[in-house]
Amino acid sequence: MTWTRRHILGLADFTTAEYDIVLQTAASFSDVLLRPMKKVPALQGRVVTNLFFESSTRTRSSFELAAKRLSADVMNFAAATSSITKGETILDTAKTYLAMDTDLMVVRHQHSGVPQVIAAEMDRLGVQVGVLNAGDGQHEHPSQGLLDLFTICEVLDASKPRSELLAGKKIAIVGDILHSRVARSNIWSLTACGAEVHLAAPPTLLPREFADFCEADPNRKLFMHWQLEPAIAAADFVMTLRLQKERMSQHLLPSLREYHQAFGINRDRLQLCKPDVKVMHPGPTNRGVEITSDVMDDPAMSLVSKQVHNGIAIRMALLYLMGNLKN
Amino acid sequence: MTWTRRHILGLADFTTAEYDIVLQTAASFSDVLLRPMKKVPALQGRVVTNLFFESSTRTRSSFELAAKRLSADVMNFAAATSSITKGETILDTAKTYLAMDTDLMVVRHQHSGVPQVIAAEMDRLGVQVGVLNAGDGQHEHPSQGLLDLFTICEVLDASKPRSELLAGKKIAIVGDILHSRVARSNIWSLTACGAEVHLAAPPTLLPREFADFCEADPNRKLFMHWQLEPAIAAADFVMTLRLQKERMSQHLLPSLREYHQAFGINRDRLQLCKPDVKVMHPGPTNRGVEITSDVMDDPAMSLVSKQVHNGIAIRMALLYLMGNLKN
Amino acid sequence: MTWTRRHILGLADFTTAEYDIVLQTAASFSDVLLRPMKKVPALQGRVVTNLFFESSTRTRSSFELAAKRLSADVMNFAAATSSITKGETILDTAKTYLAMDTDLMVVRHQHSGVPQVIAAEMDRLGVQVGVLNAGDGQHEHPSQGLLDLFTICEVLDASKPRSELLAGKKIAIVGDILHSRVARSNIWSLTACGAEVHLAAPPTLLPREFADFCEADPNRKLFMHWQLEPAIAAADFVMTLRLQKERMSQHLLPSLREYHQAFGINRDRLQLCKPDVKVMHPGPTNRGVEITSDVMDDPAMSLVSKQVHNGIAIRMALLYLMGNLKN
Repeated sequence: MTWTRRHILGLADFTTAEYDIVLQTAASFSDVLLRPMKKVPALQGRVVTNLFFESSTRTRSSFELAAKRLSADVMNFAAATSSITKGETILDTAKTYLAMDTDLMVVRHQHSGVPQVIAAEMDRLGVQVGVLNAGDGQHEHPSQGLLDLFTICEVLDASKPRSELLAGKKIAIVGDILHSRVARSNIWSLTACGAEVHLAAPPTLLPREFADFCEADPNRKLFMHWQLEPAIAAADFVMTLRLQKERMSQHLLPSLREYHQAFGINRDRLQLCKPDVKVMHPGPTNRGVEITSDVMDDPAMSLVSKQVHNGIAIRMALLYLMGNLKN
Repeated sequence: MTWTRRHILGLADFTTAEYDIVLQTAASFSDVLLRPMKKVPALQGRVVTNLFFESSTRTRSSFELAAKRLSADVMNFAAATSSITKGETILDTAKTYLAMDTDLMVVRHQHSGVPQVIAAEMDRLGVQVGVLNAGDGQHEHPSQGLLDLFTICEVLDASKPRSELLAGKKIAIVGDILHSRVARSNIWSLTACGAEVHLAAPPTLLPREFADFCEADPNRKLFMHWQLEPAIAAADFVMTLRLQKERMSQHLLPSLREYHQAFGINRDRLQLCKPDVKVMHPGPTNRGVEITSDVMDDPAMSLVSKQVHNGIAIRMALLYLMGNLKN
Repeated sequence: MTWTRRHILGLADFTTAEYDIVLQTAASFSDVLLRPMKKVPALQGRVVTNLFFESSTRTRSSFELAAKRLSADVMNFAAATSSITKGETILDTAKTYLAMDTDLMVVRHQHSGVPQVIAAEMDRLGVQVGVLNAGDGQHEHPSQGLLDLFTICEVLDASKPRSELLAGKKIAIVGDILHSRVARSNIWSLTACGAEVHLAAPPTLLPREFADFCEADPNRKLFMHWQLEPAIAAADFVMTLRLQKERMSQHLLPSLREYHQAFGINRDRLQLCKPDVKVMHPGPTNRGVEITSDVMDDPAMSLVSKQVHNGIAIRMALLYLMGNLKN
């Protein structure tokens, strides 16, 4: 099978064949990253533009380094210093960078759906530009979902990461599911690959919608919990999510302390999981809130650094696949 | 003829021979940009510094990409995060970047004349650094003027862009002429190449000075109008200018709506022009104010994307010519 | 002797052998910078990350250009737009960039000791990442101290810069010693190389601690003055320091004018020095406060531009030495 997607906007409709192509491609770039000379000429002379309407240093750095390691030229647009404030529309900004010969656009926006709108406009214009969603509102963050999947696969069989490794694994996702595009992307990828996914969150942060999404597809195994314990019991992997502190002032949570007492991941609680359980977090972390420092810093348990590391290989893989599409 | 200008500060004294060198050089880089591999080694190992005292994402991106496509290294200075706020003078900032081996400086400043002052200082110091004005106050924006000229020439004869193509063409420039450095650079280039230039603006935004400038040179054909219709009647090209919304609070305009009614470019009004009239805008646009969306998005009429696209080739040409001066 | 330091955090414990390696390496890169093609492939495929928690355009530009001239890829982290504001710790930020394959970290922070803490964490993790202090609080700024040393050596014997050239030279450091990490790094390097260093500052800006530091080592010659004249009398070099204007509101100084009258460097006062005295300033300068314009702009006296220029060669040397350590 070959890659056919011009845009990567979300994982909701990804097939396992597509996950496997991404995982294989990322694995080969992962090998490149072990060499002293970590660059390949795959996208030489091509332009990758980071259109970041919502600012994010770490995600932008990761895409920028991935693009440079493929030898692409990178343009960075950050809304903070942009002409958006001069009244230009988002599509006009995108078309300006299109006119500057952008080959691939990496789009991040605080509102759901913006990357889709830009991708649709590129298609309407008949140009062969690929759009990659780098996080849109509360919708999806597919490159994060894919790097999490890759990281899990590497734990299960580092020699050959593939989707079928997830069959029957129990994976808990804990925290502010409601506002998390990371959770959404992970729910799609993990359930599609056959994992049993358990969500744990306070009722105010756990929307019913997810169960509805999965009901349509009886192959997807998704479970919801208002307590942590049943979600993580005998789990193979526990993913914690970043808690936005503004949730307090929105009256969605009583206090950080109570949240930590009920849903914080610590060493004691992890005793409920499989003995070799691994803990994941998309970063940046609030230490002592969603996760304790001793867990986060324990290389036997924590995959946090591996996730960041794998982000480069996954983003190289995605840019490479999008950039080498046969038309 | 060969290129002899170390600095490009404005178009007021450009000769048609110089316009033709720029147009030819840009045309050859335009061909490079059609290749899959869009880079040339022309400025390898050289340093281009963007000294942007006034911030501008799109112009900076265009110069940065142009420099990278010539294989130069690029340094970006943005006043927002600069030591200017620490009391350093503009010349000291320029000399700091000079001391870091800058070969070419691209200077943007909110005040007219700053690039000239920096260029004079470089000459006084006896260094062979070229200064390119990327927009200074209400004075000039020569690379914009040149990319507009290149874009017009491409419409008239894509196979060989040259200044003589403009002879006898009618070009209207509509909007806030008073505050526009883009208008000033275009007035110089278009009248020098033999076009008949018609300015249209409300009296508060149309200074008499332009007529005075051109009276000194009887070969320049410049006309001024307080109404839109006579300016665009039988025009070959209509350039609209960005309207700064702060003009309202300065009592120079009654309202955006009245401005649009009197000077906004729409499909109906364009019926007054030549049948194959083309519309231009330096961006970013206020859709529905200076131009309607249906005109701007009509590829048969609008040159807006081509202008942005040609900006790369023109800036490559200018950096190349300045960087390859024989001393 | 070969280079053995993984991190460069300060000059307090540098040996003259180490100074000589840095000076020799910088001299060879200085030759590279005279060529039309100023790049070498020494760090190709390696990643240098600028972790700038305190912003500084000029220092960041200097490190960025140095890294690019060694053909490294550069990532820039600026706290202004960072996840630090999202509650992430400094070490987690550093570990994120470590996980993205950073080989060398250049760290700047408003608080003393931060680069040390990051370096210690890298060592604890067992990774071979080098940390270079690009200025930490009022502690040290070693690359500035080294570029100043290199600049002095070049004046004394451009053909072979070496530490022994400083023996017996009188060097005055004038200004706000109390708050200056530049002064601290220079005190260490200059006294270690055998120069006689004279500090001159108002009593509120001249802490006793420096004398204590040097008393422990009888080979270091350091003298303190509350008046300018004895410090600069018969001096070979006069270094002025930037005066932060906020020192007024902290009641450490009566006024800029009085400061200038007592400690400002002008042509008259320099008559007290050796006839061929050279004046230095780390920049950015407050012209007319710590130094007059005619002195600063006199190429026969002022080394200010040479300091900036040598900054590139010194930073190339440091990144090169750290990046080519045998383990």
